[in-house]
Amino acid sequence: MKSYKEMTKEELQTLKREMETQFEEAKAKGLKLDMSRGKPTPAQLDMGMGIMDTLNSTSVLETEAGMDCRNYGIMDGIPEAKKLMGDVIGVPADNVMVLGNASLPIMYDTISRSVTHGVLGSTPWCKLDEVKFLCPVPGYDRHFAITEHFGITMINIPMSESGPDMDMVEKYVQEDASVKGIWCVPKYSNPQGYTYSAETVKRFAALKPAADDFRIYWDNAYAVHDLYDDRTDALLDILEACEKAGNPDMVFEFCSTSKISFAGAGIAAVAASEANMDWFKKSMTIQTIGYDKINQLRHVKYFKDVNGIHEQMKKHAAFMRPKFEAVEHVLEKELGGLDIGEWTKPNGGYFISFDALEGCAKGIVAKCKEAGVVLTGAGATFPYGKDPEDRNIRIAPSYPTPEEMSEATNLFVLCVKLVSAEKLLGC
Amino acid sequence: MKSYKEMTKEELQTLKREMETQFEEAKAKGLKLDMSRGKPTPAQLDMGMGIMDTLNSTSVLETEAGMDCRNYGIMDGIPEAKKLMGDVIGVPADNVMVLGNASLPIMYDTISRSVTHGVLGSTPWCKLDEVKFLCPVPGYDRHFAITEHFGITMINIPMSESGPDMDMVEKYVQEDASVKGIWCVPKYSNPQGYTYSAETVKRFAALKPAADDFRIYWDNAYAVHDLYDDRTDALLDILEACEKAGNPDMVFEFCSTSKISFAGAGIAAVAASEANMDWFKKSMTIQTIGYDKINQLRHVKYFKDVNGIHEQMKKHAAFMRPKFEAVEHVLEKELGGLDIGEWTKPNGGYFISFDALEGCAKGIVAKCKEAGVVLTGAGATFPYGKDPEDRNIRIAPSYPTPEEMSEATNLFVLCVKLVSAEKLLGC
Repeated sequence: MKSYKEMTKEELQTLKREMETQFEEAKAKGLKLDMSRGKPTPAQLDMGMGIMDTLNSTSVLETEAGMDCRNYGIMDGIPEAKKLMGDVIGVPADNVMVLGNASLPIMYDTISRSVTHGVLGSTPWCKLDEVKFLCPVPGYDRHFAITEHFGITMINIPMSESGPDMDMVEKYVQEDASVKGIWCVPKYSNPQGYTYSAETVKRFAALKPAADDFRIYWDNAYAVHDLYDDRTDALLDILEACEKAGNPDMVFEFCSTSKISFAGAGIAAVAASEANMDWFKKSMTIQTIGYDKINQLRHVKYFKDVNGIHEQMKKHAAFMRPKFEAVEHVLEKELGGLDIGEWTKPNGGYFISFDALEGCAKGIVAKCKEAGVVLTGAGATFPYGKDPEDRNIRIAPSYPTPEEMSEATNLFVLCVKLVSAEKLLGC
Repeated sequence: MKSYKEMTKEELQTLKREMETQFEEAKAKGLKLDMSRGKPTPAQLDMGMGIMDTLNSTSVLETEAGMDCRNYGIMDGIPEAKKLMGDVIGVPADNVMVLGNASLPIMYDTISRSVTHGVLGSTPWCKLDEVKFLCPVPGYDRHFAITEHFGITMINIPMSESGPDMDMVEKYVQEDASVKGIWCVPKYSNPQGYTYSAETVKRFAALKPAADDFRIYWDNAYAVHDLYDDRTDALLDILEACEKAGNPDMVFEFCSTSKISFAGAGIAAVAASEANMDWFKKSMTIQTIGYDKINQLRHVKYFKDVNGIHEQMKKHAAFMRPKFEAVEHVLEKELGGLDIGEWTKPNGGYFISFDALEGCAKGIVAKCKEAGVVLTGAGATFPYGKDPEDRNIRIAPSYPTPEEMSEATNLFVLCVKLVSAEKLLGC
């Protein structure tokens, strides 16, 4: 196929007219599809329904050590849940706390606690003139929403296939004491599906922060979310890497079963050094008497161990793969060689990242919406919702069926062509 | 019996020697009893085991309106859980949000949010030189721990049978703009078991706070926790009272099923005006995608409606009553007429409050501990753990059996007599 950039004005105008006709036809179909959020389908959730049978009124709701899961206490999670979640992210159970039903509140609470109380004895961030966070972009909108909510200045760090631009990260972290953290989705990143290379992880671990209270926020949300048996990414254990590098306290790692068991009723964990966990507990003991240990026990009894989780994830992969393949197939077929877009081909996770021509993302998303296909808002993958080049669009294939994904992506590529032609024509 | 205060020095010394002998005998028994916390027993928790059978893998995990409880979303709770919890505290479902597994984190988060973001547009408390809370005393230690954690200055307000000293409350709230809140357990108060009178509730509702962001923290933890069928306290609806008085936004009401279903795996709610709920949601939408809706559904399916909860509470009452009666019987029999202690005879709740002679509480608690009976630490019922008169001791009868409660209380009264005799002798 001929690149749009090599076309004459006349060729582009002819194309644009054709696309406009096709767009009106597509619009007339009255599509109603949502590829905006990484939300599981009911069919995917059905795969975990066995979890509802693991406990009943005849069950002994006790941990192996005999602690009553129905009662108060055990603030930081039952031991067997610590083991399970530790194994998911490859961290010893001793470094894990299992808390509520999702990891987002753990991250929010961690930032909130730093704002009001500082980190391990540092000045509370609310007493500082400015606090900055590094934000690899494109990234996860809910991360950026937390730091924005607390008035933290966010700095964009470009991402590549091997992770964030580590030259920039090192410069900021090591020279600016107001830089207190960095948001990372290190495996099957949201939205690209990139996994940080071993080199990147090691450079993270070797950082020499200007601020004592600088922390890496390592959101390992997709630790076991492979899509293929034969194409899986591996991620180095950051806690171990930090410890080896003499920086044991520099990282908080988060994970959950939201996209393993139930999106609304999973269990979530944080992993950290002993000193960091003590710091967590100091305010947790004021905030709560304990999280829902029965749901922790329910998860442990259902999955038994990390192999049970891997089995579950194989079923999810078989279900998700055709959706990803449907998107990739249409993108390749319709946009391959046109030079009007680039996209990622992840080995796991929940998203595909699409980069349009500069200045086209908002237009494409608006066009799709006009014809009934909802995408994540353009800009959402950047701090403050502002994509400086207006290029990035996050595609979330998890909710529609593979057929719907084909249909939605066909509309999407049509909109990409139309908006790109307009752009190149200077309309 | 003869009052200790009317005894001669010689009589007291004789008594003291007798008590010392008895204490050594009691100590030799090697008791190991805990009446320190309001913790349910396994047998009490067994009464709620039916809840574990209400949902299984064949259940449709949807709300009546067809929302999938397994998935993301519905941040503020499923509608039927709002109705259930609203009925527990007598508030319309529209004013209720059902969140996580306990009310303590909701209270903590509310304070934390006020510290970092202010209340409904007010100055964030972290930007103020001083923030004060009124603390009816004796009161709940975990309340005081939250305000202490955030560096909020706590002011003691004396309690009587009808509630806090409202003259003092009015004076502070209406004259001092740095007073931002008051902790209340309005029904079967912790630790006295007092219920605020209608007059008290009306005076609360009619407050004209100097600070726009003053809020009443109304922890209605024991709303349905009657001990007797024929002796129940009634509490006026504070939300309605505030609205009538033109102060709809002045109150946050909290409740949970921690002491109805499972102490570690219940559901919790906050009730407030629409404006206050919007303020909650503004940061909740950053903090979470939603709480555990399956557990909300489980509770709704099990209890069906508030009558189901009342039925459950009748079973709890039958179980708890003998424990309270055991304590009251021993106290009356052994201390009646001696003028060395006063105690409450609550109609509900989880505690009995005991006031010793001035300067004796710490000594009594220490003596009890020496002989194997653990009580809530003396002072714990006051801000900063400091009982200015060293008089108050909280007795929590929920965990031991009635026989153990008798035994523990027999030791307790012995320690009260001994420490009081020493005090009166000026030892």
